[in-house]
Amino acid sequence: MLSSSRRSVLVLALLLGAGALAAESVDEMRRTIVELRDRALEDDLAYELLRSLTTEVGHRLAGSPGDRAAVAWARRQLEALGFDEVRTEPVTVPHWVRGKAEGKILEPYPHDMVLLALGGSVGTPEGGLTAEVVRLPSLEALQEAPEQSLRGKIVFVDRRTERTSTGRGYGEAGGVRRSGPAVAGAKGALAILIRSIGTGNSRFAHTGSTRYNEEVPKIPAAALANPDADLLAAQFESGGSVRFHLDLGSHYRPNAQSANVIAEIRGREKPDEIVLLGAHLDSWDVGTGAHDDGAGCAIVMSAARLIAGLPRAPRRTVRVVLFANEEFGLSGAFAYAEAHADELARHQLAIESDLGGDRVWAFATAVNPAAAAEAAGIAALLEPLGIEWLEGPARGGADLTPLRTARVPRADLSQNASRYFDYHHTIDDTFDKIDPDALAQNVAAYAAVAYWAAETPTTLTPAPEPPAPSGGR
Amino acid sequence: MLSSSRRSVLVLALLLGAGALAAESVDEMRRTIVELRDRALEDDLAYELLRSLTTEVGHRLAGSPGDRAAVAWARRQLEALGFDEVRTEPVTVPHWVRGKAEGKILEPYPHDMVLLALGGSVGTPEGGLTAEVVRLPSLEALQEAPEQSLRGKIVFVDRRTERTSTGRGYGEAGGVRRSGPAVAGAKGALAILIRSIGTGNSRFAHTGSTRYNEEVPKIPAAALANPDADLLAAQFESGGSVRFHLDLGSHYRPNAQSANVIAEIRGREKPDEIVLLGAHLDSWDVGTGAHDDGAGCAIVMSAARLIAGLPRAPRRTVRVVLFANEEFGLSGAFAYAEAHADELARHQLAIESDLGGDRVWAFATAVNPAAAAEAAGIAALLEPLGIEWLEGPARGGADLTPLRTARVPRADLSQNASRYFDYHHTIDDTFDKIDPDALAQNVAAYAAVAYWAAETPTTLTPAPEPPAPSGGR
Repeated sequence: MLSSSRRSVLVLALLLGAGALAAESVDEMRRTIVELRDRALEDDLAYELLRSLTTEVGHRLAGSPGDRAAVAWARRQLEALGFDEVRTEPVTVPHWVRGKAEGKILEPYPHDMVLLALGGSVGTPEGGLTAEVVRLPSLEALQEAPEQSLRGKIVFVDRRTERTSTGRGYGEAGGVRRSGPAVAGAKGALAILIRSIGTGNSRFAHTGSTRYNEEVPKIPAAALANPDADLLAAQFESGGSVRFHLDLGSHYRPNAQSANVIAEIRGREKPDEIVLLGAHLDSWDVGTGAHDDGAGCAIVMSAARLIAGLPRAPRRTVRVVLFANEEFGLSGAFAYAEAHADELARHQLAIESDLGGDRVWAFATAVNPAAAAEAAGIAALLEPLGIEWLEGPARGGADLTPLRTARVPRADLSQNASRYFDYHHTIDDTFDKIDPDALAQNVAAYAAVAYWAAETPTTLTPAPEPPAPSGGR
Repeated sequence: MLSSSRRSVLVLALLLGAGALAAESVDEMRRTIVELRDRALEDDLAYELLRSLTTEVGHRLAGSPGDRAAVAWARRQLEALGFDEVRTEPVTVPHWVRGKAEGKILEPYPHDMVLLALGGSVGTPEGGLTAEVVRLPSLEALQEAPEQSLRGKIVFVDRRTERTSTGRGYGEAGGVRRSGPAVAGAKGALAILIRSIGTGNSRFAHTGSTRYNEEVPKIPAAALANPDADLLAAQFESGGSVRFHLDLGSHYRPNAQSANVIAEIRGREKPDEIVLLGAHLDSWDVGTGAHDDGAGCAIVMSAARLIAGLPRAPRRTVRVVLFANEEFGLSGAFAYAEAHADELARHQLAIESDLGGDRVWAFATAVNPAAAAEAAGIAALLEPLGIEWLEGPARGGADLTPLRTARVPRADLSQNASRYFDYHHTIDDTFDKIDPDALAQNVAAYAAVAYWAAETPTTLTPAPEPPAPSGGR
């Protein structure tokens, strides 16, 4: 029915000439956006894709057997969804293996601890290591601590992560995970324990990657679950020495091959111009990566599938990119930027979903100033989804880092992250934590914005100069 | 001030004769109850005791080093609190050791599982066992399943526990944990997995004791966390064979010595009549037993301490009993009943706190009919605490089982159990889950009711005939 009404519009447009054609065309684009939006809310494809990924693949750390299984799964699913083209592009990834992770307070009162090695951590010597613990309140305190106070000790950085809907608390707390091991290693500490960079008060430790400094000793690094950090902190009340035993089996294996998995809906008028819908296919090796970032994969696959199901392809190409290895150094993102360097200037818009599967609450863009007003008009179509328009420039997900530098326009459809950091990077990031209605709302928003960017007569490039870089996820 | 007003009342009473004396005395009793209640709300002793128990002792399974440390801790704390007498009474307890617990789905899709052995489970053969999984929806279905369908298989009973404020859902679900292993063993199953008898959807498995039948093979038994049970259930959607590997190191050691720890406030008129305030000192060997039943210990210790701090002891003896080994067969409860058999008829009232540290919402008693109206009057004094009066007879905690048979009067001050079974019997039962205000409200209610029973001129014995026995906690 719609398709026939579209034909009438086109015929009418031809009669009325180009100016009217443009107006009619924008009008039709808006009707299609509303249609996609409303259809997405009735669609359970994303939820079923995520069920399939978490059931049939599970966790999928870069380089692991799960990573290979995930690439095969994504290729198979995208092929079944009827895109014009599905392909993989090779990405070389590190392959770190967690091994065992055990920790216990020995004195003043013995307790077994729940902890996880930080991603990339070296292991302890065989049989573990035992030392006195020094407690510090923050990364800043660690940076200022005199070497002699840390030499031969286990450093415990006891900084709590604030719960926020934007993820700001996580961003602020993340420095100690990324840099703490390098700083403590430089000062002669034997190992470092951090309070998990997570907001939950359940006994789940929170992993995530750390970056050593090649110039200084690499020391074993682990995160304690919040209740375990509480318990370790409470031992200092005794006034006695606090001793800890840590045994980590973590190590690297040789680099492995993975892939970015790509699917396209070929644009009907400007197939060389690209609207990129991204998410990352890898996950940590704990949980089943449901919120991080299985949700993102399911959302962008489903949003693109809805667009592929329209009677007429949009003007530009819509490209789904499921990036390899976001968690462990953005290997997939850099491989994509390199492989598509010549094409980046023709990327009309890039959006990544990588903040879990809860409801989108905000829409922002980073597009050229002439196009910004049009984006605000599109935002009005997202209001029924409970999504606010934010003026500020969009940042884009971590995998868009190299595209940001290349001034590729970006949009943010930001999920409410209030509970995301309870699950993210823990063994508890599993399918049961996903709300199917929230996932469908995401698909509605991503489909609407992607279609807009792919269909609008307006050029969104280039984005404004990017803001200063900040930490990863 | 109160003490001097009390003296005036006594002088006046002597002038007015016995009837008026009784009325005045009841009036004063009610004033003291209100005073205890209100003072408890300002008191943080229970919270600090619980902090100390969970920090300095941690978990304390019957027979373990933590059990011995807990007995020493309790004795030391009670002595410091200034009771008239503190003593331990010997209890022989089983000593089960959990050992390692590993499980994984092998087919159709490999996944590591979060699980805990059920208390008392035998181990698997060295290196574990591997078999096909048969999924059943309930204990009833297991009871009805033909032997040939289970022989050589791993049984998975996939029944979900309902969340209720009363604990009813837990009671209804518990049968599979208690009896499932014996039923499956009798039918030739190699092992049994159950969906955790807990309400949380976090990846914490829920342990608890099981009872083998000595006539049939004892098979290894473990509980899967709810998300892991979901994932195992989802494997059956593939239509293919579901295979599982289970490796449990659980075993028994020789029986060990533990103790009931007892503290008394000697009654000023009827020291041979007892008001028993109970809780259990043991915990499972996971978490730090904060809600189960560190909270109960802290509540009854603090409630009794408030009564001990009154200017005048109550008429009857108030006896705190911290029972040994509730979890693994009520050894402490039976040892108490045996050691105090001659005294049970003089137990005016027994109350146990063993449903966590959240707010008390209901008060009920099982006392002789003549005393029931007085209990309802006392309930009015608990209303400001948000506590309802329930007509039905009190059941009493698990450790009161032998006292129930002996028709010892009981009271229930029932905690809201809505979130209790998220933590109870899991590694996540830790101090940070305790709300200090809720704990103080508990102390207020327990102190008020204990003081009433110890002071009232009314005799509460005997309780009505006990209801039919039901399952343990």
